[in-house]
Amino acid sequence: MTDAPPTAAGRRAPLDVVAIGSALVDVLTTATADDLRRLDMAKGSMTLVDLARAASVYAAMGPAVEVSGGSAANTAVGVAALGGRVGYLGKVAADELGEVFLHDITAAGVTMSRVAPVEPSGDPAADRATGRCLVLVTEDGERTMATHLGVAATLGPEDLDEELVARAQVVYLEGYLWDLGPAKAAMRRAMELAHANDALVALSVSDPFCVQRHQREFLELLHGEVDVLFANEDETTLLFGAATFDAALAAVEETGLLAALTRGPLGSVVVTASGPVAIPADPVERVVDTTGAGDLYAAGFLHGLTNGQDPERCARLGGLCAAEVISHVGARPQADLRALAVEAGLL
Amino acid sequence: MTDAPPTAAGRRAPLDVVAIGSALVDVLTTATADDLRRLDMAKGSMTLVDLARAASVYAAMGPAVEVSGGSAANTAVGVAALGGRVGYLGKVAADELGEVFLHDITAAGVTMSRVAPVEPSGDPAADRATGRCLVLVTEDGERTMATHLGVAATLGPEDLDEELVARAQVVYLEGYLWDLGPAKAAMRRAMELAHANDALVALSVSDPFCVQRHQREFLELLHGEVDVLFANEDETTLLFGAATFDAALAAVEETGLLAALTRGPLGSVVVTASGPVAIPADPVERVVDTTGAGDLYAAGFLHGLTNGQDPERCARLGGLCAAEVISHVGARPQADLRALAVEAGLL
Repeated sequence: MTDAPPTAAGRRAPLDVVAIGSALVDVLTTATADDLRRLDMAKGSMTLVDLARAASVYAAMGPAVEVSGGSAANTAVGVAALGGRVGYLGKVAADELGEVFLHDITAAGVTMSRVAPVEPSGDPAADRATGRCLVLVTEDGERTMATHLGVAATLGPEDLDEELVARAQVVYLEGYLWDLGPAKAAMRRAMELAHANDALVALSVSDPFCVQRHQREFLELLHGEVDVLFANEDETTLLFGAATFDAALAAVEETGLLAALTRGPLGSVVVTASGPVAIPADPVERVVDTTGAGDLYAAGFLHGLTNGQDPERCARLGGLCAAEVISHVGARPQADLRALAVEAGLL
Repeated sequence: MTDAPPTAAGRRAPLDVVAIGSALVDVLTTATADDLRRLDMAKGSMTLVDLARAASVYAAMGPAVEVSGGSAANTAVGVAALGGRVGYLGKVAADELGEVFLHDITAAGVTMSRVAPVEPSGDPAADRATGRCLVLVTEDGERTMATHLGVAATLGPEDLDEELVARAQVVYLEGYLWDLGPAKAAMRRAMELAHANDALVALSVSDPFCVQRHQREFLELLHGEVDVLFANEDETTLLFGAATFDAALAAVEETGLLAALTRGPLGSVVVTASGPVAIPADPVERVVDTTGAGDLYAAGFLHGLTNGQDPERCARLGGLCAAEVISHVGARPQADLRALAVEAGLL
């Protein structure tokens, strides 16, 4: 026996969740269905676009508001707002929007990884600006997105902050990253590290089109790599190639994973070893902007999970966070999520 | 008589209003009175700060939202939202926030002057970035601001887009510009041009502290240079060195100017040759953020004025626009102002 402190020197404090994703600033505006048609954008979808297309969509958009976003980053901020210890790994440029992203996530209480912001090249064609997501919100609160990844597209294994990842109880990965070869390699290494540390790996499949692009790979990940699956109804159905959501549920059960499947106004279904359980959605007075609904649901669920709550209670906490974020513009919480959760008896 | 068209070739279409001011992007967050004390900021004030102070306030601020702002620019956007033809003259840098400012004001239907965005020098100490206004909104909806002007501080006579100014029926000037020597010279030239074209000059005194700094000069302007005065209750009282608002009103009457004086929840008072008339404020369900209240009041008033309405009706239109902008975060209108005005029987 020695007098050494319980935590070895140099070892940093553990984190509940480390989220990895594309660091983006959202550029939000309202639009009509006609506007979307004119811009040739499929309502409700997220499309990756190049700089030229991003510029032409932006030019056609109305006056906008800039708010930090990025799917996994929104989740990280949600976990922090609930009182969780959370890290985030993503890549921004050393430009004004990068500064905004870093400020906002840090001010929210998230530990951002030590990946240095990339110096802009000065050549607009070189695409080394901070990524942005043009979000067009229609009257029904639905969002249609055109994302220009900028430097977020260059995330690779060399950017993986292994010290940060090794501190996680849950490593949370954004499905969108599977669109990028180098990011995918980084994700594989993150999963390896997580498992070596007895941490859980959680995957959000992000978007129905993302599922279509990576169905086979995502299904393979569910056998041994991923422990917790986040998907919405359409994504679940597509992922398992099922005809209906109910048929997909049976397939989810067979995987033996913990799955949290969202259904918009219908709430969510949690699948565990003892079968699926449906949890109703929290009431929302007026759905203003659904941007971030899935991200914040994941935040609540993960915060419950890392605090030893049962899956049904995790899902309720997820529903509460999703309800808050869709009641205003922007994908980051504005109310005190922790206070709301305490009030609801969930924390 | 000739067959020449009524508008001479090369002559551009007339504009109802041309507004001149500091082009800023607002960085908005919520704060408590304690936060303001800790940051040594006087609640409700606007303070000009240097880059270092702006950085330290920003670092202490919570997650924020970026929205185009700038007092006179907000007014210009309000006039456009009501259906007016409006131009704006202000100075931004060729950086990301400058791009955001240009996009938003153009998308709102305002003709921005041909002043080219300034190339950033790459040297942060050289302060050539687009100006920003850090806005801390307290629970009571009041805003406290720290403004770093950036390139907006370099606005000078050489930037005066004389062709744009010459098209105006009303030239609207932001009082904040009197803090800057070169801008003041530009304003003097703009007033000269306006009068040469039989246009009206409107001045907003912007802020009580601004009035304290420039009381003598503002009073001189009211004799011969300015035709329409915008001020709130405190600013009016300070400007005329009066003990009470009522005493100040008598002094305003003596000037013979058209004056639109706002009183927050008490509405506004319009002073004309036939004396002062009080107009009650429009009801607001919940005051969320008073940023832009005065700017949008001026927008409604000016739109009424340039459409031949009587001063009382102008004030009602101002009140309607102010009520909209204080019911949400940000100083630019979010609802369809024109539709609201038509519904209220004011357009």
